[in-house]
Amino acid sequence: MTGPAPAAPVPAAPAPAGPVPSGAAPSGVPAACDGPLPVLGNDVLVPLADGGEVPYAALDCAASAPVLRRVWDDVAAYAPCYGSVHRGAGHLSQLSTRIYEESRAEVARFLGCRPGDQVVFTRSTTDSLNLLAAALPPGTRVYVFETEHHAALLPWRNADVTYLDAPRSPAAAVATLERALSAGGPGGPALVCVTGASNVTGELWPVRELAAVAHAHGARIVLDAAQLAPHRPVDIAELDVDWAAFSGHKLYAPFGTGVLAGRPDWLRDAEPYLAGGGAVRTVARNTGGGLDVRWHTGEARHEAGSPNVIGAHAVASACRALTEAGPDRLVAREERLTARLREGLAAVRGVRQLSLFGDDAPRVGVVSFVVDGLHSSELAEALSAEYGIGVRDGLFCAHPLVRTLLGGDTAGRGEECGAPAPADAPGAPGGVELRAVRVSFGAGTPEEHIDRFTGAVAALARRAGGQGRRR
Amino acid sequence: MTGPAPAAPVPAAPAPAGPVPSGAAPSGVPAACDGPLPVLGNDVLVPLADGGEVPYAALDCAASAPVLRRVWDDVAAYAPCYGSVHRGAGHLSQLSTRIYEESRAEVARFLGCRPGDQVVFTRSTTDSLNLLAAALPPGTRVYVFETEHHAALLPWRNADVTYLDAPRSPAAAVATLERALSAGGPGGPALVCVTGASNVTGELWPVRELAAVAHAHGARIVLDAAQLAPHRPVDIAELDVDWAAFSGHKLYAPFGTGVLAGRPDWLRDAEPYLAGGGAVRTVARNTGGGLDVRWHTGEARHEAGSPNVIGAHAVASACRALTEAGPDRLVAREERLTARLREGLAAVRGVRQLSLFGDDAPRVGVVSFVVDGLHSSELAEALSAEYGIGVRDGLFCAHPLVRTLLGGDTAGRGEECGAPAPADAPGAPGGVELRAVRVSFGAGTPEEHIDRFTGAVAALARRAGGQGRRR
Repeated sequence: MTGPAPAAPVPAAPAPAGPVPSGAAPSGVPAACDGPLPVLGNDVLVPLADGGEVPYAALDCAASAPVLRRVWDDVAAYAPCYGSVHRGAGHLSQLSTRIYEESRAEVARFLGCRPGDQVVFTRSTTDSLNLLAAALPPGTRVYVFETEHHAALLPWRNADVTYLDAPRSPAAAVATLERALSAGGPGGPALVCVTGASNVTGELWPVRELAAVAHAHGARIVLDAAQLAPHRPVDIAELDVDWAAFSGHKLYAPFGTGVLAGRPDWLRDAEPYLAGGGAVRTVARNTGGGLDVRWHTGEARHEAGSPNVIGAHAVASACRALTEAGPDRLVAREERLTARLREGLAAVRGVRQLSLFGDDAPRVGVVSFVVDGLHSSELAEALSAEYGIGVRDGLFCAHPLVRTLLGGDTAGRGEECGAPAPADAPGAPGGVELRAVRVSFGAGTPEEHIDRFTGAVAALARRAGGQGRRR
Repeated sequence: MTGPAPAAPVPAAPAPAGPVPSGAAPSGVPAACDGPLPVLGNDVLVPLADGGEVPYAALDCAASAPVLRRVWDDVAAYAPCYGSVHRGAGHLSQLSTRIYEESRAEVARFLGCRPGDQVVFTRSTTDSLNLLAAALPPGTRVYVFETEHHAALLPWRNADVTYLDAPRSPAAAVATLERALSAGGPGGPALVCVTGASNVTGELWPVRELAAVAHAHGARIVLDAAQLAPHRPVDIAELDVDWAAFSGHKLYAPFGTGVLAGRPDWLRDAEPYLAGGGAVRTVARNTGGGLDVRWHTGEARHEAGSPNVIGAHAVASACRALTEAGPDRLVAREERLTARLREGLAAVRGVRQLSLFGDDAPRVGVVSFVVDGLHSSELAEALSAEYGIGVRDGLFCAHPLVRTLLGGDTAGRGEECGAPAPADAPGAPGGVELRAVRVSFGAGTPEEHIDRFTGAVAALARRAGGQGRRR
């Protein structure tokens, strides 16, 4: 990390855990009818450049969302009962196994899984899609839009991949896929990979329609629900997708667990994702000096190693919390806040919001934008240093999409996608910088964060260009 | 899961987190000079078959260890400050990035890494060894003893593997490896994989000597430190191993993170373990319609997806806690308790402790045994139901070793290695059952657990066979 180390903030002390290790909500302040769900961190004070301090506004939820208090309480209640999963004879091992398998069932309900669908716990959406990529039948053709997140764009290393150009409307997306599958011709397995909601523009993709086209051509489809699941109900059966993947850390449960859920056949027929204990039924030396190995056929086949039961429990807790909070209510609140955010930004002179499908396209609470005359990285740094607001600037692990949206050469500082920049990174500060700022919120975001953000952008834009709000 | 669901126990309520998100110990009762380190769960009451209840005795630490209170406090203090790692401009993202990279440095210190060694965060030892297996140069020959855990036995799917017969002494292990490497002849890359401490017998392996033999033949060596790291200091430089792997969940930090640490070259030259954001520097469409991709070269290359910063922070916290508690003191206490445990078992008629290297071989706090006339699964169930003691019975994800040690056909119920038994599992109850019981403890285990356990085994053996303690 470059620059001075940030000062230690003052975190809120989580409430002691209740006595119930799973199931019903053990505590947590009930959300007001239209208020945010309680999350950890909204009262964490962070230092400002002027020497003051202010409660942190976490507006990078599309990268990682704060921990739901309900999730924290469930984890805290279970932690003393943690035991070996699937492996021990003791009471807490049995309890841990039950919690782990109940977490799987809870996730299946949350995703609207069909009977027979598998729910494999992974470490993240990236891991889930790499697992599916490793399970493709030989010769599978893969179709993926260039607009996808790198986690959906890159895993298909052993497949014949067709990259589809960025469509400019949901209907164009469907038509583009239709043309590509028709050109691909019949025969052999094929897979379409598509996001449910863009991690750059927040725009919703026509998943159901794309699934219909895929299936009409004998292809299968996997839904990258990393940005969709925290914002909208996801129903695998209703959308008629073959698989869906999402991450706990974007769903208010950042304890190292993600999910791949869907059809069992390709997974059952594939080599185990990891080789090791838990995935294997029996191992024996054979007369030739080698090993005879019999693998499991269910989810365990791809979950070698001791399961991350705390992570799975946390994800299931988040699923339960979002379901019980009422998806309709959450969506209504989010749409109201999204409108407020976008109107606030639109009122600032020089702001351009990035969009693939146009202003009226339905979207979740994720907005990327640039400001005339103000470098995105400087804007992001000022939002943090002067207002205690956390956003992200860069290309958002979706380089081709952001390049298309910005319409420029963004190679200058492209190494922002994770990891500290290595010493030989191209594009030192001072070089070409064509990046964007992304603001994203979630079910735990108070309205004050949105208003603080739009006010701050207006003030910073005014200072940079002598401009300011449009009206 | 079969059988009745266990009743919900009464967990201890973790103390509220202190104000310090990382670094110095924020709280936790200081351990007595020779007492156990504070862990969660020692006051969790579990029900007994007679209607009573008793504090749980977690004696399956070799599978998964309870959470150190210090680790919990660090996680609880950090959780409200959780933010996107490597990705955000906000204060808590910067803090999270700093905590993540400081965790890497802490683990490097804990393992005695050399300058230039990499510390890659994975999900577990299994994952770490699968990562190394995926990074082997083409044509690598792998040498592995049949006595290894499945996590070390099975990942080498794309290599030419030589399985070495179980040695009956540390010297025999060295001689066996020497012979095999000599027979393998010169040329081409080679890797030896060896455990530091057996997960079945607890016996320590001659790692330094095996490393010397490997290097003398131009081979490299990876240490499976899953069972070693919780019990003994591990020093990569001093042992002169090329890599070491361990799991957080066996090191009192079960938040989904493991480690692979060591030489950077094979890792740097390998394809990224997972493909996705974070592992990639730049992605661009090329004129042929495909993608031009530039990957990172450091640890990030193999850490695609959002890092599990809570898991990494927890592992680092455990490393710090064990270091500060004093390795010498912890080892002395463990050796005293191991002797107490083994003497207590030896005093029970009909008990046979499993050993590869003999009674006097140095070992950690892991003991497997069988009792004449008492099925291992029945013994394990009775220890839980009547004494509130959690142990493990089965083949411990080391089938060939346990078969060798038991000297019988253990194929009857081999599916115990993770995952609920499928409906078509061979060896229904009533069939041949040749399994063992494993008891294992750790730095948080009170003496009372050891004494309760040996007393219980004596009483159950007496009841089963009309026998009892030998003296």
